[in-house]
Amino acid sequence: VIIFNTVHDPLSASIGFSILGCAITWRLVPALKDSFLKANLTGKDVNKLDKQIIPESMGVVCATVYLVCLFLFIPFPFMEWFTGKGIISRTEEFHAPTFPHHKLGEFLSAMLSLQSMTFLGFADDVFDIRWRYKLLLPTIASIPLLMVYYVNFGETHIIMPIPLRFLLGRVVDLGLLYYVYMGMVAVFCTNSINILAGINGVEVGQSLVIACSIAINDYLFLNGSSPAVEAHLFSLYFILPFIGVSLGLIMHNWYPSRVFVGDTYCYFAGMTFTVVGILAHFSKTLLLFFIPQIFNFIYSVPQLFKLIDCPRHRMPKFNPTTQKLNYSRVHIQKPLGIPAFVILKIFSSLGLVEITELENSIEVNNFTLLNLLLLKFGPMNERTLTIVVIIIQIFTSCIAFIIRYRLVHLFYEIII
Amino acid sequence: VIIFNTVHDPLSASIGFSILGCAITWRLVPALKDSFLKANLTGKDVNKLDKQIIPESMGVVCATVYLVCLFLFIPFPFMEWFTGKGIISRTEEFHAPTFPHHKLGEFLSAMLSLQSMTFLGFADDVFDIRWRYKLLLPTIASIPLLMVYYVNFGETHIIMPIPLRFLLGRVVDLGLLYYVYMGMVAVFCTNSINILAGINGVEVGQSLVIACSIAINDYLFLNGSSPAVEAHLFSLYFILPFIGVSLGLIMHNWYPSRVFVGDTYCYFAGMTFTVVGILAHFSKTLLLFFIPQIFNFIYSVPQLFKLIDCPRHRMPKFNPTTQKLNYSRVHIQKPLGIPAFVILKIFSSLGLVEITELENSIEVNNFTLLNLLLLKFGPMNERTLTIVVIIIQIFTSCIAFIIRYRLVHLFYEIII
Ligand SMILES: [Mg+2]
Ligand SMILES: [Mg+2]
Repeated sequence: VIIFNTVHDPLSASIGFSILGCAITWRLVPALKDSFLKANLTGKDVNKLDKQIIPESMGVVCATVYLVCLFLFIPFPFMEWFTGKGIISRTEEFHAPTFPHHKLGEFLSAMLSLQSMTFLGFADDVFDIRWRYKLLLPTIASIPLLMVYYVNFGETHIIMPIPLRFLLGRVVDLGLLYYVYMGMVAVFCTNSINILAGINGVEVGQSLVIACSIAINDYLFLNGSSPAVEAHLFSLYFILPFIGVSLGLIMHNWYPSRVFVGDTYCYFAGMTFTVVGILAHFSKTLLLFFIPQIFNFIYSVPQLFKLIDCPRHRMPKFNPTTQKLNYSRVHIQKPLGIPAFVILKIFSSLGLVEITELENSIEVNNFTLLNLLLLKFGPMNERTLTIVVIIIQIFTSCIAFIIRYRLVHLFYEIII
Repeated sequence: VIIFNTVHDPLSASIGFSILGCAITWRLVPALKDSFLKANLTGKDVNKLDKQIIPESMGVVCATVYLVCLFLFIPFPFMEWFTGKGIISRTEEFHAPTFPHHKLGEFLSAMLSLQSMTFLGFADDVFDIRWRYKLLLPTIASIPLLMVYYVNFGETHIIMPIPLRFLLGRVVDLGLLYYVYMGMVAVFCTNSINILAGINGVEVGQSLVIACSIAINDYLFLNGSSPAVEAHLFSLYFILPFIGVSLGLIMHNWYPSRVFVGDTYCYFAGMTFTVVGILAHFSKTLLLFFIPQIFNFIYSVPQLFKLIDCPRHRMPKFNPTTQKLNYSRVHIQKPLGIPAFVILKIFSSLGLVEITELENSIEVNNFTLLNLLLLKFGPMNERTLTIVVIIIQIFTSCIAFIIRYRLVHLFYEIII
């Protein structure tokens, strides 16, 4: 109800800020190149012949522009309380019952969590934070989010899918576990983009596809019932400027990159998705848009958890002669441990690995989506590989929409 | 009323977090030294014989610990709504009228503004941001703060001091100007600490004195009437952990410094003071605690605005023979411009400058409080100078308390 009345105005303001954010990012990124080079925030573009040193972690520029845009945007959804001044009642006990303080709280907590992750990402780029903190800090960063979720909604019941009801019943109250689940969504979204990375344009490319899918999904709800409209408008307010600044950034990050986006961008993007997924109540749909990331994560697990040897970098290998990328490989000493043996057995039966037997060791491709694509489709140009990833992301988003809107009746009675 | 009922619990939690914050900062700062050196965040300790390179902008560690402490603390003042679960009513329109959403909004906006400034300060340390952005960004960072001020209080009337009432009447509604004033408090607090800096321990030292003064002032209100109690408890929740982490930091930053605190700390400290001053309604009292900074700022104005030549650094000069600091000087070419001439005339009649006439130029001390102290009291050891500044800060805080609580009846009818 609350935002419904002003539906048209804040949305156009949001679109305006998104376009502005795009333009500013596009202008600011090249202007700040020298500062980044001077501050030693640089990376080597290894998949090129000349291996240039270019500015790293430009995502911080893009995130800062985004945050400034949202700071300036915050008053817009509440405009009617500002223009129709009399409506805000200020009693001595500081109560203003008509003003939607809880809505403002959602904005503020979302911004706070977002900014925390951006800050963490930037710190990671500057200092190279250790892995355990990378898992701990997103959890702390999502505290404001979860707290506002608790006081504004507090819904921890989930409706079980029909095929599972014989086990647990129709409705299950996850209670505290639901908050653990949401915290894990935050950790997953922020880190999963970060591990599907390493070639020009792929981080921003995949994030843009996910963001557009979210925006389309929000748009589909806009003519529905009022609480859902409100939630999805909220989501749009966060996603549209994100699309704007990401477009501004990808123009400089597309092959051949003139800047890298850094961990900052991956964390920033992941947290934006988490924020809208949680506060607009579509975390399950959100995860459907992460199919390639989920696949890549599960595929990577054996190496991430050191069950299979994990080299420092698992990026595809650049072949200077052909100027194409090929999959990178890792040596594993014989004899294999039991977990490694089992994993290789399973993966090879699924056609996910290529094993070469050597005398005292075996050689196997590194377990990442990028390497798998190169294994299946043969060596590719860097740009082509990015485009393939983006196409896969778009394709899985289409599948996600089909699951969400066509197959949902297999699992639930009604489309919620 | 709201927090009054739970007055004892959150306050002890806050004290607990402050002690924890102190301990963690104290441990973390030396542990992270190497990361800072590797990231090239370093400064040269120029006022020593060996001019060691030591880690710079350690304030970011202290600020991060502070923010994490506050993230974890946020739920405490609202505990009664969490334990007495039934009280939160969750209707379908997402209204929860009994929960103090506006209070939570204050916390969130305060955190958001604080974190923005910390982020900006850190960016300044890494990139050396230009002056005009330094003035623009604190303004943007305080938008969430001002917006929450608007919706929660919206009070823009000020009661004029008695001696000025013949001019403007008893009550003046500043309207929009009041928000400009609050924005300027943010810009002033963040930058004024940053310009009274440059010798070991002085940034943290002065901030600690200001913070303790605020805490004492809050404490004096705790037995008063309920709205004031609530506001000053809010202030304590922010100030106590600040005192904690600053104590943890100064142990490493005290003469001879093993780490520098960087712009990050100055911005972080300034914004903490702004946040509590604005949201707990004592911005005028707050400015009374800034007397040395206000003096230093006004004294610096001619050089900051380039009316008098301003060298890149205006820090005191280290004398390697005596190992003491002496005031630094600037050459001004003759003939002097009219503004420069007038300023020198005024300042010398106030005894604030020492002018040496040379053939084609004059030489004058740089216009900073530190140089003035060295001019008046003669060369000093670096540690002594810091102690003198801290003593002055304590002394002016005492004056501030006298003005606020003893002389206030000369300007206002009642002690508010
Ligand atoms: Mg990193
Ligand atoms: Mg600087």
